[in-house]
Amino acid sequence: MSFAKLDAHCHSLSALEHALSILGVDEAVSMAPGGGEARAEAMATLSGMYHRQATDPKVRDWIEAAEAEDLTSEQRIAVDELERSYVSMTCLPSDFVERKMRTRMRSEQLWRATRPKGDWATFQPALEGVVAMMREEAAMRAEVLGLEPYDALMEQFDPGNRAAAITPVFDELKAFLVDFVPKALEVQQERLAKRPLKALSGDYPVERQKALGLVLMQAVGFDMNHGSLSVSDHPFCGGVPSDVRMTTRYRTDEFLPALMGILHETGHGLYEQNLPKDWGHWPSGKARGMSLHESQSLFVEKQIGRNPAFWRFALPLVDAHLMESWTIEDLLPHVHQVRRGKIRVDADEVTYPLHVILRYELEQDLLAGRIEASDLPEAWDAKMSASLGISTLDDPKDGPMQDVHWPSGAFGYFPSYTLGALMAAQQWAAIAKTNADVDTQIAAGDFTAVNGWRRDNIWSKASTGSTPAILKNATGEELNPAFFIAHLEARYGQ
Amino acid sequence: MSFAKLDAHCHSLSALEHALSILGVDEAVSMAPGGGEARAEAMATLSGMYHRQATDPKVRDWIEAAEAEDLTSEQRIAVDELERSYVSMTCLPSDFVERKMRTRMRSEQLWRATRPKGDWATFQPALEGVVAMMREEAAMRAEVLGLEPYDALMEQFDPGNRAAAITPVFDELKAFLVDFVPKALEVQQERLAKRPLKALSGDYPVERQKALGLVLMQAVGFDMNHGSLSVSDHPFCGGVPSDVRMTTRYRTDEFLPALMGILHETGHGLYEQNLPKDWGHWPSGKARGMSLHESQSLFVEKQIGRNPAFWRFALPLVDAHLMESWTIEDLLPHVHQVRRGKIRVDADEVTYPLHVILRYELEQDLLAGRIEASDLPEAWDAKMSASLGISTLDDPKDGPMQDVHWPSGAFGYFPSYTLGALMAAQQWAAIAKTNADVDTQIAAGDFTAVNGWRRDNIWSKASTGSTPAILKNATGEELNPAFFIAHLEARYGQ
Repeated sequence: MSFAKLDAHCHSLSALEHALSILGVDEAVSMAPGGGEARAEAMATLSGMYHRQATDPKVRDWIEAAEAEDLTSEQRIAVDELERSYVSMTCLPSDFVERKMRTRMRSEQLWRATRPKGDWATFQPALEGVVAMMREEAAMRAEVLGLEPYDALMEQFDPGNRAAAITPVFDELKAFLVDFVPKALEVQQERLAKRPLKALSGDYPVERQKALGLVLMQAVGFDMNHGSLSVSDHPFCGGVPSDVRMTTRYRTDEFLPALMGILHETGHGLYEQNLPKDWGHWPSGKARGMSLHESQSLFVEKQIGRNPAFWRFALPLVDAHLMESWTIEDLLPHVHQVRRGKIRVDADEVTYPLHVILRYELEQDLLAGRIEASDLPEAWDAKMSASLGISTLDDPKDGPMQDVHWPSGAFGYFPSYTLGALMAAQQWAAIAKTNADVDTQIAAGDFTAVNGWRRDNIWSKASTGSTPAILKNATGEELNPAFFIAHLEARYGQ
Repeated sequence: MSFAKLDAHCHSLSALEHALSILGVDEAVSMAPGGGEARAEAMATLSGMYHRQATDPKVRDWIEAAEAEDLTSEQRIAVDELERSYVSMTCLPSDFVERKMRTRMRSEQLWRATRPKGDWATFQPALEGVVAMMREEAAMRAEVLGLEPYDALMEQFDPGNRAAAITPVFDELKAFLVDFVPKALEVQQERLAKRPLKALSGDYPVERQKALGLVLMQAVGFDMNHGSLSVSDHPFCGGVPSDVRMTTRYRTDEFLPALMGILHETGHGLYEQNLPKDWGHWPSGKARGMSLHESQSLFVEKQIGRNPAFWRFALPLVDAHLMESWTIEDLLPHVHQVRRGKIRVDADEVTYPLHVILRYELEQDLLAGRIEASDLPEAWDAKMSASLGISTLDDPKDGPMQDVHWPSGAFGYFPSYTLGALMAAQQWAAIAKTNADVDTQIAAGDFTAVNGWRRDNIWSKASTGSTPAILKNATGEELNPAFFIAHLEARYGQ
């Protein structure tokens, strides 16, 4: 039976994914400094093994044969997802894949070398090469998938996401934010005039911060029997669903950045830990995609973790662990701080979408040939000036050179961040609609109902539908920016 | 060119070995408790992948073709070693391999269940099954390799080791020890009568012990750029040559067991770290075998680490780290303690070989059918009584049930331990012969000359010759028990 062959094939790929994932975590957390070369060699060889197995022509035959077999609906969905990922991995000619790898590597290296000095002139030709290559790739993927070129790229990160649906949502959100940011800043200023910001700084040993992080991770649902928290230079959530490896980094003079980082990664971790166990080796049993994953991390970080109700529960724990005696009024201005800035990764939840929408618009313009890489410094500056009133013309380092995504050929990825924020707000609203006590529950440290809804509607669905389909099934409607807008207005507008 | 194919094949196998090794370390050191099932599944799948690749019939064709190619001598040795390991992995029919796996698993499980109560009667039938199976395996390997059955089993652990060469050495050693153990105990008693044993106990925080361990590891040559030290329930030395993962476990009331454990594992680590880099993926570039590996760990633990000269260097570091002020006279009676006992793993360097020789003799008797599993309790007791004056008849738990080796089908492995001790003494003697200052160097914490000799004569040789050939090239003679005997006489006989 061909399905049984596909099942064994999935076990084999999952074992390689497991190895690559744990080797990646180990590299970030435990590897000796001199171990990098052999590790890179081993991981490249295992990735090659993965790719050869995943794209083996026999897999296509098994898929075709399995489609004619008498399958359960779960098995049928698994075969469909396998086909989707098989097509995605095989639709580019291998000489193009090799060329892309070389172009990407060179461009990323050049980006790393030129970014610190903001040397756009040296970097630009490399980016031009990437843009040309991505136009080719988008055209090829579009041809195979019968999609628009940009949609064909997004399809890799979030199956079902289409610019035709996203653009009006982003347009509405942008129009709102351009007015709202100044208003939120004004509200903030009024608040601070009445009650000046109190610094949340002190001397917080790493062990105390870690103990605090562990308590809050577990409170919001993280299962320490299937995961752990350690330290790395760049915080991440990795590992495998049965053993989710979260990392953070600590400063001993402040606790909030590490703690909010832990909450964010816990959101990713909850999704992974609660994926279906029995068919977790099928593509349909993996997490759906980047925007849904980001919706889970932002749900915990923003919808829960910046909710005043949450701090009624969490602040006494913070005070006890760090031996402080702050009040909610001391803390909230920090977790609700709004600030205009050039850097996406430093942005707050109010200004962040403007950074993303700018990139979403520009990468479509680049792909479509409406602009060239050489136009980016001016185009970036124009959009930053219009949306946030910030000029980046004389600072390409913190303008179009700030992200690794484009130099590494990841076009179509940026929207995931803001789609995640919108979907998190929409999920929260769906919960609140049928559960009027949600704030009371959270203030009591009771996440049962909230997590129950998420388990039923998001986590257990894994990749059994497209991203928009999962959202619609969960919340009863298509992606709707009204929930996020209402969320911002309630939190920052008064 | 077929050699190029074999080279790529070795890269592929090495990547899988790398993954399996790091996954194993991760499991012992970092894995979440609930991660075990998925880890076992992933490792079993990767092991299967390794086995399929390693035993692919194409490999035999490439080996045959490569043998006709114009190769360097290094390449020729690599092909020979590849052939050796290919034959070793393919010489058993696959239905036998499956049956062996099942028999082993059942027998190990039963051993774990029955050992705590010393329930020999329940365990015996499982061991009988293993013995029958090992007789079959030895006969099959003997047939393919043209060796005696027991030699064919040893060949897996130490290529070139032959009972015909080992038996007279072990006989000589046993005859010596049966007389020497009582003498050493007498000498010890006289010393203790003059100067009673001073307890080396106190309250030693783990961080201090770890700092001490790191200082001594590095002093004897461990490269922290290519390795690390962490904690696990069962100390081991794992990882890969570019990143050697050593572990230990600490008690806070005493420091010596953890420290001696660290020195032992450092010996394994030095061998791995100093294997050839350029062809480390070829079988000829890996560590030679169990007895040579053990000779390296015992060299550091016994020849260096129990040498009074070493403690002239190390004791001030111990005192400084643990805030004690012991003298060499306080310490040496502990590192030179001799004690008769039933348990091999608890034995000192004087009595240990008697435990090993007993097993060496019995496993040959079992394989040859001169005794059956049911005879073991009496046969074990007879030998223990004769060599160490200890009866185990009413204590099978600490008699023939104490080791996992036989229940798991590892026949031919035990001699490695004592061969390692003999070879370590022979290597030390070879160094001392041309380097009269070796004790002075070690007392000054200078391991350059000692490690230089080991690098040139052992580490860099990897698997380019058989175990006896490497020893003979290094020391100028065949395995000779005189060096170990002289070592024991000097350290324990006066």
